[in-house]
Amino acid sequence: MSDPFFHPVSGFDLPRFAGVPTFMRLPHVPLDDARLQDVQIGLIGTPWDGGTTNRPGPRHGPRQLRDMSTMIRAQNGATHIRPFELANCADLGDVAPNPAGLEDSMTRITAFYDQVTEAGILPLTAGGDHLCSLPILRALARATPLGMIHFDSHTDLFHSYFGGTMYTHGTPFRRAVEEELLDPKRVVQIGIRGTTYDSEDRDFAKSVGIRIIPIEEFHVRGVEDVMAEAKEIVGSSKTYVSYDIDFVDPAYAPGTGTPEVGGPNSYQAIQVARMLDGVHIVGADLVEVSPPFDTGGATAFLGASIMFEMLCNMAQNLTSD
Amino acid sequence: MSDPFFHPVSGFDLPRFAGVPTFMRLPHVPLDDARLQDVQIGLIGTPWDGGTTNRPGPRHGPRQLRDMSTMIRAQNGATHIRPFELANCADLGDVAPNPAGLEDSMTRITAFYDQVTEAGILPLTAGGDHLCSLPILRALARATPLGMIHFDSHTDLFHSYFGGTMYTHGTPFRRAVEEELLDPKRVVQIGIRGTTYDSEDRDFAKSVGIRIIPIEEFHVRGVEDVMAEAKEIVGSSKTYVSYDIDFVDPAYAPGTGTPEVGGPNSYQAIQVARMLDGVHIVGADLVEVSPPFDTGGATAFLGASIMFEMLCNMAQNLTSD
Amino acid sequence: MSDPFFHPVSGFDLPRFAGVPTFMRLPHVPLDDARLQDVQIGLIGTPWDGGTTNRPGPRHGPRQLRDMSTMIRAQNGATHIRPFELANCADLGDVAPNPAGLEDSMTRITAFYDQVTEAGILPLTAGGDHLCSLPILRALARATPLGMIHFDSHTDLFHSYFGGTMYTHGTPFRRAVEEELLDPKRVVQIGIRGTTYDSEDRDFAKSVGIRIIPIEEFHVRGVEDVMAEAKEIVGSSKTYVSYDIDFVDPAYAPGTGTPEVGGPNSYQAIQVARMLDGVHIVGADLVEVSPPFDTGGATAFLGASIMFEMLCNMAQNLTSD
Amino acid sequence: MSDPFFHPVSGFDLPRFAGVPTFMRLPHVPLDDARLQDVQIGLIGTPWDGGTTNRPGPRHGPRQLRDMSTMIRAQNGATHIRPFELANCADLGDVAPNPAGLEDSMTRITAFYDQVTEAGILPLTAGGDHLCSLPILRALARATPLGMIHFDSHTDLFHSYFGGTMYTHGTPFRRAVEEELLDPKRVVQIGIRGTTYDSEDRDFAKSVGIRIIPIEEFHVRGVEDVMAEAKEIVGSSKTYVSYDIDFVDPAYAPGTGTPEVGGPNSYQAIQVARMLDGVHIVGADLVEVSPPFDTGGATAFLGASIMFEMLCNMAQNLTSD
Amino acid sequence: MSDPFFHPVSGFDLPRFAGVPTFMRLPHVPLDDARLQDVQIGLIGTPWDGGTTNRPGPRHGPRQLRDMSTMIRAQNGATHIRPFELANCADLGDVAPNPAGLEDSMTRITAFYDQVTEAGILPLTAGGDHLCSLPILRALARATPLGMIHFDSHTDLFHSYFGGTMYTHGTPFRRAVEEELLDPKRVVQIGIRGTTYDSEDRDFAKSVGIRIIPIEEFHVRGVEDVMAEAKEIVGSSKTYVSYDIDFVDPAYAPGTGTPEVGGPNSYQAIQVARMLDGVHIVGADLVEVSPPFDTGGATAFLGASIMFEMLCNMAQNLTSD
Amino acid sequence: MSDPFFHPVSGFDLPRFAGVPTFMRLPHVPLDDARLQDVQIGLIGTPWDGGTTNRPGPRHGPRQLRDMSTMIRAQNGATHIRPFELANCADLGDVAPNPAGLEDSMTRITAFYDQVTEAGILPLTAGGDHLCSLPILRALARATPLGMIHFDSHTDLFHSYFGGTMYTHGTPFRRAVEEELLDPKRVVQIGIRGTTYDSEDRDFAKSVGIRIIPIEEFHVRGVEDVMAEAKEIVGSSKTYVSYDIDFVDPAYAPGTGTPEVGGPNSYQAIQVARMLDGVHIVGADLVEVSPPFDTGGATAFLGASIMFEMLCNMAQNLTSD
Repeated sequence: MSDPFFHPVSGFDLPRFAGVPTFMRLPHVPLDDARLQDVQIGLIGTPWDGGTTNRPGPRHGPRQLRDMSTMIRAQNGATHIRPFELANCADLGDVAPNPAGLEDSMTRITAFYDQVTEAGILPLTAGGDHLCSLPILRALARATPLGMIHFDSHTDLFHSYFGGTMYTHGTPFRRAVEEELLDPKRVVQIGIRGTTYDSEDRDFAKSVGIRIIPIEEFHVRGVEDVMAEAKEIVGSSKTYVSYDIDFVDPAYAPGTGTPEVGGPNSYQAIQVARMLDGVHIVGADLVEVSPPFDTGGATAFLGASIMFEMLCNMAQNLTSD
Repeated sequence: MSDPFFHPVSGFDLPRFAGVPTFMRLPHVPLDDARLQDVQIGLIGTPWDGGTTNRPGPRHGPRQLRDMSTMIRAQNGATHIRPFELANCADLGDVAPNPAGLEDSMTRITAFYDQVTEAGILPLTAGGDHLCSLPILRALARATPLGMIHFDSHTDLFHSYFGGTMYTHGTPFRRAVEEELLDPKRVVQIGIRGTTYDSEDRDFAKSVGIRIIPIEEFHVRGVEDVMAEAKEIVGSSKTYVSYDIDFVDPAYAPGTGTPEVGGPNSYQAIQVARMLDGVHIVGADLVEVSPPFDTGGATAFLGASIMFEMLCNMAQNLTSD
Repeated sequence: MSDPFFHPVSGFDLPRFAGVPTFMRLPHVPLDDARLQDVQIGLIGTPWDGGTTNRPGPRHGPRQLRDMSTMIRAQNGATHIRPFELANCADLGDVAPNPAGLEDSMTRITAFYDQVTEAGILPLTAGGDHLCSLPILRALARATPLGMIHFDSHTDLFHSYFGGTMYTHGTPFRRAVEEELLDPKRVVQIGIRGTTYDSEDRDFAKSVGIRIIPIEEFHVRGVEDVMAEAKEIVGSSKTYVSYDIDFVDPAYAPGTGTPEVGGPNSYQAIQVARMLDGVHIVGADLVEVSPPFDTGGATAFLGASIMFEMLCNMAQNLTSD
Repeated sequence: MSDPFFHPVSGFDLPRFAGVPTFMRLPHVPLDDARLQDVQIGLIGTPWDGGTTNRPGPRHGPRQLRDMSTMIRAQNGATHIRPFELANCADLGDVAPNPAGLEDSMTRITAFYDQVTEAGILPLTAGGDHLCSLPILRALARATPLGMIHFDSHTDLFHSYFGGTMYTHGTPFRRAVEEELLDPKRVVQIGIRGTTYDSEDRDFAKSVGIRIIPIEEFHVRGVEDVMAEAKEIVGSSKTYVSYDIDFVDPAYAPGTGTPEVGGPNSYQAIQVARMLDGVHIVGADLVEVSPPFDTGGATAFLGASIMFEMLCNMAQNLTSD
Repeated sequence: MSDPFFHPVSGFDLPRFAGVPTFMRLPHVPLDDARLQDVQIGLIGTPWDGGTTNRPGPRHGPRQLRDMSTMIRAQNGATHIRPFELANCADLGDVAPNPAGLEDSMTRITAFYDQVTEAGILPLTAGGDHLCSLPILRALARATPLGMIHFDSHTDLFHSYFGGTMYTHGTPFRRAVEEELLDPKRVVQIGIRGTTYDSEDRDFAKSVGIRIIPIEEFHVRGVEDVMAEAKEIVGSSKTYVSYDIDFVDPAYAPGTGTPEVGGPNSYQAIQVARMLDGVHIVGADLVEVSPPFDTGGATAFLGASIMFEMLCNMAQNLTSD
Repeated sequence: MSDPFFHPVSGFDLPRFAGVPTFMRLPHVPLDDARLQDVQIGLIGTPWDGGTTNRPGPRHGPRQLRDMSTMIRAQNGATHIRPFELANCADLGDVAPNPAGLEDSMTRITAFYDQVTEAGILPLTAGGDHLCSLPILRALARATPLGMIHFDSHTDLFHSYFGGTMYTHGTPFRRAVEEELLDPKRVVQIGIRGTTYDSEDRDFAKSVGIRIIPIEEFHVRGVEDVMAEAKEIVGSSKTYVSYDIDFVDPAYAPGTGTPEVGGPNSYQAIQVARMLDGVHIVGADLVEVSPPFDTGGATAFLGASIMFEMLCNMAQNLTSD
C-alpha cells in the first residue's frame, strides 16, 4: 500500500476545477525534495517542441495535460485498479528546456532522466514533441537496448530532414536504433497511416526488423489481436511505451501538429493502453499534445485518460514484483 | 391527426436560420395559454445547473437546444414517422429557476411539472444538469414508482458530496430511489464508464437491483442486444427515459461538463433512442448539454436529434393508445 | 511519368506551413498559361455558395482546402500510388463567381469547365456548395449523360424551394436528370440520412431509377459491399463522382452548413474514395466544406485527404489508358 | 404609459439565459396577430445576406441579436429612459427571405414593411446585410424622400460590382438616391475608412451633395461635434438611421464580413446612437452582424446595446409627439 | 528584502510555459505549511460562482489566472517596483468551495481568510464571482468597518433577486453595508454603466453615502482626476480594493459573465490599479474572470496584470511601514 | 506608373475570398523568375519562429497574412495613395527555413535577402518571429549601419537567455548593434511596456544611445509628437522599420506570443505607420503575428493593414527619387 502523502486530492474534498493543477492532483515533488526517495512512479513534463517540423505547440502540452488530468479520479472504472494505492506516485515537475537550443534541450532532458532513473523511479512522461523520446531513451537504455511498443500514425524513422537535419520529431527512433537504445527486433509500431514522402522509413524498418502494423491492418484485425502480437514482440524484457496522440483519429484528438485522418476512436485509444497489462514497462510517454490546435482541452483530456491507463499498468506491475 | 396549429414552421417557408427559435419550430404555448389544453406532448426547458459539481453551463442548454433544433425537419428519415402529425406538440417554455437557490429551484421545477401532468401532457425536457431529473420525477411519480432507462457515463447514484451535500447532479437517482420515485428493479443504466471515486454508487445499485451495463459490455454486445435487455427490464409499465448527453463520446458531444472518453458514436446515440419504440414513456429528458464547452453547437444539434427520436416514439405511442 | 514541372513542393525542401498555398503544393497554371496544354488533371476551386438555403460559408472552401492540402505528401500510405508522378497535375485556380448573381455564377462556372474539357483536362473540384455540381455537369456531359457515384447525407433531388425556386443546393441533381446530364439508372447515392421535409425527393429517385443507399443500410452492409454495388451500378462508362463532405459524420467534418449526425467515420470516408479504383471518372468534386463552421481546419484537412484519394484513382486510370 | 402586455420579462423573474429569446424579451407579435394594432415600435429581423460580396453570415444576425438582447434590462443606465414604459414595443418576427433569390427577397422585405408602416408602426430592424436597407426604404419612403444618418466604414454608394451587378451590399444607397428614396442633401455618412477600390463612390457623393465624415475627421473632432453637424444636416424632417456594425472597430465588433481597422471604440459606438435624441426617426436598422465571424457573441451584444440606445430615442420621440 | 525562498521562478531559468502553474510562479504554501508564518502577502483563489445569476464560469477563474500569470515577470515596467523583493509573497492555494452549497461555501471562505488574517498575511484574491467578496470581508472587517475602492460596471448593491434571494453576485456590498463590514461613507464605486433593472441600488447608495462615479463621468474626467477623488474618499484608513474584471470594456476582457460595453481600455484598467499607491490596502480581489467565455486567455492575462499592479502597491506599502 | 502585370487582382473581378492567396493579390514572382528584374518592392514571408522563447506560432504568420491581405484594396482611403500604380510590387514567396536548425535558418534568410538586395528590390517582410530581423539586417546593412524605427512592447535588446543562448527573439537588436548593422544613435523604440525581468536591456540602450519611448510617454504625448521625434532621430539616412505586432494592444492583436496589455489601439497602430512618410526606408518588417493564438484572423488583418501603410510610403518614396 502506498504512503497517504502520495494520494491525490479527491474531488469530494476539493472540486476538480480548484487547486494548483499537478498531474492527477498528485503532490509536486521536485528532484531536490527529500520525498523523492519514496517515489516509485514519477509523472514528468517535457515542455519542448524544438524538433517539430510542422505546426508547433507541444511545448504547452504538460501544462494543459496537468489541467485536464484533474478530471481523473482514483479508480479505473473498468479494471477497478486504484494505482495511487498500489504505488507512490508524484508529479516531479518539468524539465527546463531551452526553446532556442535544440542540442542543449536534449542534454537537459537526458540529465533530468538520469536523476530519475538513479532514484529508481519509473518515469511517465507528458510531452513535448516526439523528439523528446530520444533523450529520455538515452537515460533509460544506458544498460541495455529496450523493446518498444509505439502507437503513432507516423514511424518517426526518417533519416533526416531539410537537407541533413538529423534531429527532428520525424527521426527519433532512427537515431535510437542507431545509438542502440532500442532493439529493433523488439519494436512494434501500431497505427501507421497517412500520406508519405516516400518509403525510406519503412524500408529502414524492414531492414532492421521493426514490425509495422498499418492502420488498415489494425482496423481489420481489431485491438485484441493486434495487442496480442505486440506483446509477443516485446516479450517479458524491458520495454518502453511511446504513445503519440496522433495515433488517435483527429476527431478525438484534434490538438496535435501533424494529424492523419482515419485513425482509431477514443475507445480503442484507451483499450490499447489498458491491454499493456503484464508488459515490463520501464518508462512511457504521451507526446504531441498541442494545446494551440486543440478545442476546449479535448485532446489533453484524452491524453490524460491514456496516461492513467498506462499508469494503472505500471503500478500494477510494481505490486507483482 | 394533429391540429395544424401545432405544426412546426417548414424550412421551405421560412429558412431554418430565421424566426424566433422555439423547440423544433413549434408554437410557444405558455402554461397560462388557452391552447395548453390541446397539447399532448410538451417540450420544456429547465435552464438550471445548480447541482453541478464540476464545470458549469447546462443552464444555457435549453436556449442552444432551441436554436439548433430549428435544423430538425418534419419527418424521421429512417422510420418515416412524422411526429407533429401524430400528436399536438408545443414548446411550453422554460421553468424559471433560481440560480442562487438550490432548493427553491427544485421546488419551482416540481411545481411546473405538476401543472404539466395535471394538463395530461407528456413532458420532453431539455436540461439543465442532471439534478433537474429529480424534481421532475417528483411530479411524474406521484402515483407510483416509475421504471427508467438511463443513458449516461455516470450512475448519478452517489450518496453525497463535499461532506454531506445530498443534492448534486451526482446524486439524483439515489434520492429518487430513496423517495420511491423509481422502482430500482425496473431501472437500467447504459454506457457507464470513466474513472470513479470508488464503488459506493455501484454497490448501492447492486443492493437495490439496478442493472448497470458498462460501456465495455455495450461495445461487445452492440446496440440491439443491449436495448432488447433494457426494454425487458422496464417492461410495459410506466417508464421515464433520462438521457445524459455525456453518454455519447466527447468527440461527438464535447459540450458537457463531465465528459468521459470511450463512449458511443453519434449513430449509436441515435439508435438507442430510436429503439425505445414501444416503451411506455411517461416523460423523457435530455440533460447536461453545456454550450460554453461546446464547439459550434455540435452537441446541441446532436441533442436535438436525440430529442426528435424520443419524440417520435412518444408520438407514436399516443396513436396506438 | 509526369513532367517534373508538375511535381509538388516537398515538405523536406520547404516546410509545409510555408509558401503560397496552392492545392497540394502543385504549380498554379491559370487557363491562359501556356503550360495548360500539358495538364492532365486540373484541381479547380468554385468558391460560390449562392445556392445555400441554410448556413452559408462554402465560398471560403477552396481557400481553406488549399491551405490544409499543403499537409498532403506525395505518396498514398496505403496503396503506395504516387499520383503526381503518374499524371501532370496542376492548380488551375478558381472560377470567378458572382456572389450576388445566381444565374451569372452558374454561367461562369460552365464556361470555365468548357475550357477545361476542351483542353482535355480531367477536373477535380473543390467547392463551393452543391449547386456548383450542376454547371460543372453541364460542361462535362455535353456529349452524353453520365453515371454518378454520390456521397452525401441528402439526395439533393428536390423539385424546388421557397415556393418555386428551382436552383438551390438541394436541387442540382433533379435539374441534372431533367437536363439529361445524368443517366438516373447509373446514379447511386450513398449515406442518405437525417430528418426530411417529406418523401418527394425519394419518390422522384424511385420513379427515375436512382439507387439510394441510406445510412442504415450502409452501416449494416459495410463499406466494401456498398462500394461493390455502387461500381456495378455505374459500370465502365463515364462517371462523375460528387462527394458532399456532410456525408461524413459531423464529429469528423463539423465545417459544413447542413450536417446530419450518425454518419461514417473518417476511415470509412477515406475508404469509399479509395475504392473508386477502376471507375471511369471524368470528373469529381468535394463540396460543402464551410470554413466559418469548422474548428481548426479539421474539415478541410479531411476534405483534402479525400480529394487526394480521388486524385490517386484518377491518375491511376490515366496510366492504364 | 405603455400597456403592461408589452413589458419585457425581467431578469429578476426569469434569469436572462432562460426563456424563448425574443428581441429584448418583448412579446412576439406576428403581423397577423390581433395585438399588432397596439404596437408602436416594432423590432424586426431581416435574416438575409444575399447582397454580400465578401464573407457571408449576416443571415444569422437576427437570431444571435435576439439571443444576446436578453442581456438588456429595462432602463438606460445613463439617460434613465425606460423605453418599454414610454411606448408599446414588440418583436414582430422575421421577414421570410429567399436565400437563393435576390430580387424575390427584396420584394418580400418591402411587402413586410408596407404592412408595418400601414399599421403605423416604427420599425427598428436587425439585419441582415446592408442591402436589406434598400427594400426597407422602398416601403418607408413611399411618400417623400428621407434624410439619413448613416454609420459605417463604407459608403455603400458604388454603382455596380462584378461587371454590372446593381444590387449588392455595396450599392444600396446609390440605388436609394436614384430611386429618390433618400434626399442626398440630407444624408450624412460617418466613420468612412479603409482601403478603397477607387474614388467612384465618393465622387458620386460629392456630385449629389452627400456629406461624408471620414474616420480621420471623426477622431479629430470627437463625437459631440460630429453628431451636432449630423443633426443639422438632417434637420427636423423625417430621417432614417442606418447603422452598419462595421462602423465600430473590429476589436469591439469582430463579427462582421468586411471589417476595417481604426474605428471608434464601443463607448463612442454607444454615444453616437445616444446622441440621436431629437432626430425625427421614422425607422432605423443595425446591420451586418455576422455570427459565424463573431467570438462569443460580443458583436451581437454590442449590436443589441446600440439598438437599445436607438430604441430609447425612438420611444422618447413618441412621448413628445 | 524578501527571503529568496519566496522569489518566483524566472523565465530565464524555466520558460514561462513550463512548470506547475502557481500564481506568478511563486511557491505554493498551503495553510498547514510551516513556511506560512513567513508569508506577508498571500495570493489566494476562491473558485466559486454560486452567486452568479447569469452566465456561470468564474469558478474556473483561479486556475486560468494562475496559468496566465506565469507570463508576469519580476519587475514593474513603469514604476520599476520589484514586489517579490519587497515582500514575501506566496500562493496559498484555493479555498475549497461547495459548488452545490451556497451558505456552506461562504462559511468555508470566511474560515480560510480568518486563518490568513490571523497569520498576519495580506490577502490578494483571485475569484470567483463577486459574492466571494462578502465572506472575505467578514474575515477582514472583524475589528472595524473598512473603506473600499470598487471598480465595476455594476454596483452590486441590490437588495435581492428572484423574489427574495439575498445572496447573489449582485448583492454582496448591500449585505456588507448592512453587516457593517464597510463604512459606506468611505466607499467609492467607479465605472458603473449599462442598462439597469431600476434605480433601487443607486437610491440605496445615495441614502448611505456611497459615492458612484458612472462611466460617463469617468470618461470625461479621466483616470487621474477620478483616482484622486477615490483616494480622498477612502483616506488613510484601512481599505479594501475590489476589482470586477467587467469594469474593463469587453473587447479587452470578454471572459466574464455580465459584460457591459463602453468601458475603459486596458491601459486605463492598469492605470487605476497603479494609482492605488499609498492607499492603506488590507486586502484586494480581482473577480468575475470567467474562462469559458474568454478567448485565448486574454481576460485572465489582463486580470493577472491588474493583480500584479495591486501587488506592487501592497508590497510597497509594507516597506514603508 | 507601374507595369500592369504587377497590378493586384481587383475584388470587382474576382471576389476577395477567391483565388490563390498571395500578398495583397499581387503576382507571385519567385527569385528564379525572369520577371524578378522588374520588381521594385518585394513582399516576402519568413515563416520561422525558431527564436521564440515563449508561445510559438509565428511560423504560420506569412500564410495567414497572405490570406487576410486579400481584403486589402488598391487605394489608401486616407492618403489616396495607390501604391501598386506607383511601383512594381510582387510576392516573392517565402524563405525556406529549417524549423529544427536555428543557425541554418538564419543563414538561409540572409542568403535570400542578399539576392533580393542584389536585384535592387526593397523588401517588405511578413514574419516570423522577431529574430528574423537579424538575418535580414545582415543582408541589408552590408554597406553601412542603418537607422531603425522600431514599434514594439519589448526592446529585444537582451544579452542572452537560458544561461547563454545568444539568439532568441529577445536579442536580435543587441546582436545587430554588436555586429554594427544598426547605428544605435539612429535607433528609436516606441511603445515599450509590460513587466520586465530586470533593466539590463534598458541599461544597454542607454549606454549605446538608443532612444526608448515607453508607452506611458506615448500615451501622454500622442502619435504625432512621438513620430516627429522618431523621424528626427533617424533623419534622412537609410532606415529600417521593424514593427512587432505586439506593439498594439492585445484586444486588437491577440494573435501573438508575448502580448502586453495597455498598448495603442488600431487607429494609432495605423497612424504610426502612415506617418513614416518621407523616411528613407530600405526595408521593413511586420513580425510576431501568431495565427494559433489569433481569433478569426483579426491580428493578421490588422497586420496586413499596417503592411499596406508601410508599402504606401515605400512606393511613394520611389516616385520621388
